[in-house]
Order: sequence, then structure tokens, then C-alpha cells
Amino acid sequence: MSSDPGGVAADQLRAFVERIERLEEEKKVISDDIKDVYAEAKGNGFDVKILRKVISLRKKQPHEREEEEAILDLYLQALGMQGYIGNE
Amino acid sequence: MSSDPGGVAADQLRAFVERIERLEEEKKVISDDIKDVYAEAKGNGFDVKILRKVISLRKKQPHEREEEEAILDLYLQALGMQGYIGNE
Amino acid sequence: MSSDPGGVAADQLRAFVERIERLEEEKKVISDDIKDVYAEAKGNGFDVKILRKVISLRKKQPHEREEEEAILDLYLQALGMQGYIGNE
Amino acid sequence: MSSDPGGVAADQLRAFVERIERLEEEKKVISDDIKDVYAEAKGNGFDVKILRKVISLRKKQPHEREEEEAILDLYLQALGMQGYIGNE
Repeated sequence: MSSDPGGVAADQLRAFVERIERLEEEKKVISDDIKDVYAEAKGNGFDVKILRKVISLRKKQPHEREEEEAILDLYLQALGMQGYIGNE
Repeated sequence: MSSDPGGVAADQLRAFVERIERLEEEKKVISDDIKDVYAEAKGNGFDVKILRKVISLRKKQPHEREEEEAILDLYLQALGMQGYIGNE
Repeated sequence: MSSDPGGVAADQLRAFVERIERLEEEKKVISDDIKDVYAEAKGNGFDVKILRKVISLRKKQPHEREEEEAILDLYLQALGMQGYIGNE
Repeated sequence: MSSDPGGVAADQLRAFVERIERLEEEKKVISDDIKDVYAEAKGNGFDVKILRKVISLRKKQPHEREEEEAILDLYLQALGMQGYIGNE
């Protein structure tokens, strides 16, 4: 049986704390793994910043990306920033 | 008169962009000022981490802080972490 | 004259705290102003996400942006993601 | 054999992208699990904010925490914020 100092269910609290700490530890390992993969990619000559951009683009549909690029180009043109428009 | 390539009101867009850039510049100056004050405090022997804690506590009412400390102490006691309880 | 409980220069500490709080208040006002300008731009039909992108691009040189786009397109092509490549 | 458009090792790039996406997916699952545990703790009457504080304190040594509290109390006293000092 657990004691409940101040009305706190000690065993239950400890269980929550331990579950959270275990999950946070797992999360840290995976975060480190991700960093390692990026570092390995960099070591193989890939551009990490662009790689992140690719990963982020893949979460979108092609037509979403296309629409965004179209609006961006309109804005850049309106601002006289043609030099910033890609792929001409 | 402004041209509206692709239906974009160029003058209006430029005005928004310039206002945002001016405000962001001002914000950067103030952020740098804050860093400088902390650095100056550190140079005068103050602990920056604790100083940040003080600033954050001052945004609370004393009774809020008191309540949070009371619950924290209950939890620490329940977990057998008495060594972490302050001010005995 | 100021008292120094525990060796803390109270007047100096108070001065640092007040300077930081004043600067943080100013920073908050500017942050709110920036939000307001974006909201106003949105109210005038501009796409806030793309506007942020424009602001961020303007911090780069045209050739930097061009180089990044070129590498991005190479990667997208290598991955068979031609549909994501802009401006064809 | 893989093709290398623009000198990009397509197979290698694809492998990196897939490893990163898999790891990010795993990380998301764990992040969601952590949120769920906190929600469950909240549902059992625990204060989530204080629980986070407990988890963060456990990463420190008791004497570190003790030292920080001692300095904090000195600062609060110097600022006439005695009402914010815990555990009297």
C-alpha cells in the first residue's frame, strides 16, 4: 500500500513521472538519430538546409506547392525582386 | 499610379513589407538591448538564470507562486525528493 | 544608501530588473504591432504565409536564393518530385 | 544502377530522405505519447505544470537546486518580494 502525503497518490505520481521520463529518453535518442542522419548526409556532400526543405515539401501536395510558388512569384515581381524568382 | 501585375497591388504590398521590416529591425534592436542588460548584470556578479526567474516570478501574484510551490513540495515529498525542497 | 542583504546590491539588482522589464514591455508592443500589420495585410487580401516568405527572401542576396533553388530542383528531380519544381 | 541527374546520387538521397522521414514519424508518435501521459495525469487530478517542473528538477542534483533556490531567495529579498519566497 502506498502512503498519500498531502492527499497525493504517491505510487500513481511516480508511475506517471517514470513513464514520462522513459518516453522523453526515447524521444531524445530519436532526435539524436535524426541529427546523425543529417550529419551523415552532409558528410556525403548533401546540403542539409536543402534536404530539410525537401522533407518539408514532401508533406505537401504538388499543387499546394505550385500555388504557393505562383503567389510568391507574383509578390516578388510586384516588388521588383525578379532576381529572386527561381527556374527561369 | 501603381501597376498591378497579376492583380497584386504593388504599392500596397511594398508598404506592408516596409512596415514589417522596420518593425522587425526595431524588435531586433530591443532584443539586443535585453541581451546587453543581462550581460551587464552578469558582469556585475548577478546570476543570469536566476535573474530570468525573478523577472518571470514578478509576472505572477505572490499567492499564485505560493500555491505552485505548495503543490510542488507535495509532489517532491511524495516522490521522496525532499532534498529538492527549498528553504527548510 | 542601499542595504545589501546577503551581499546582494539591492539598488543595482532593482535597476537591472526594471530595465529588463521596460525593454520586454517595449518588445511586446512591437511584436503586437508586427502581428497587426500582418493581420491588416491579410484583411487586404494578401497571403500572410507568402508575405513572411518574401520578408525572409529579402534578407538574402538574389544569387544565394538562386543557388538554393538550383540545388533544391536537383534534389527534387533526383527524387522524381518534378511536380514540386516551380516556374516551368 | 542509379542515375545521377546533375551529379546527385539519387538512390543515396532517397535513402537519406526515407530514413529521416521514418525517424520523424517515430518521434511524432512518442511526442503524442508524452502528451497522452500528461493528459492522463491531468485526468487523475495532477497539476500538469507542476509535473513538468518535477520532471525538470529530477534532471538536476539536489544541491544544484538548493543553490539556485538560495540565490533566488536572496534576490527576492533584496527586491522586497518576500511574499514570493516559498516554504516559510
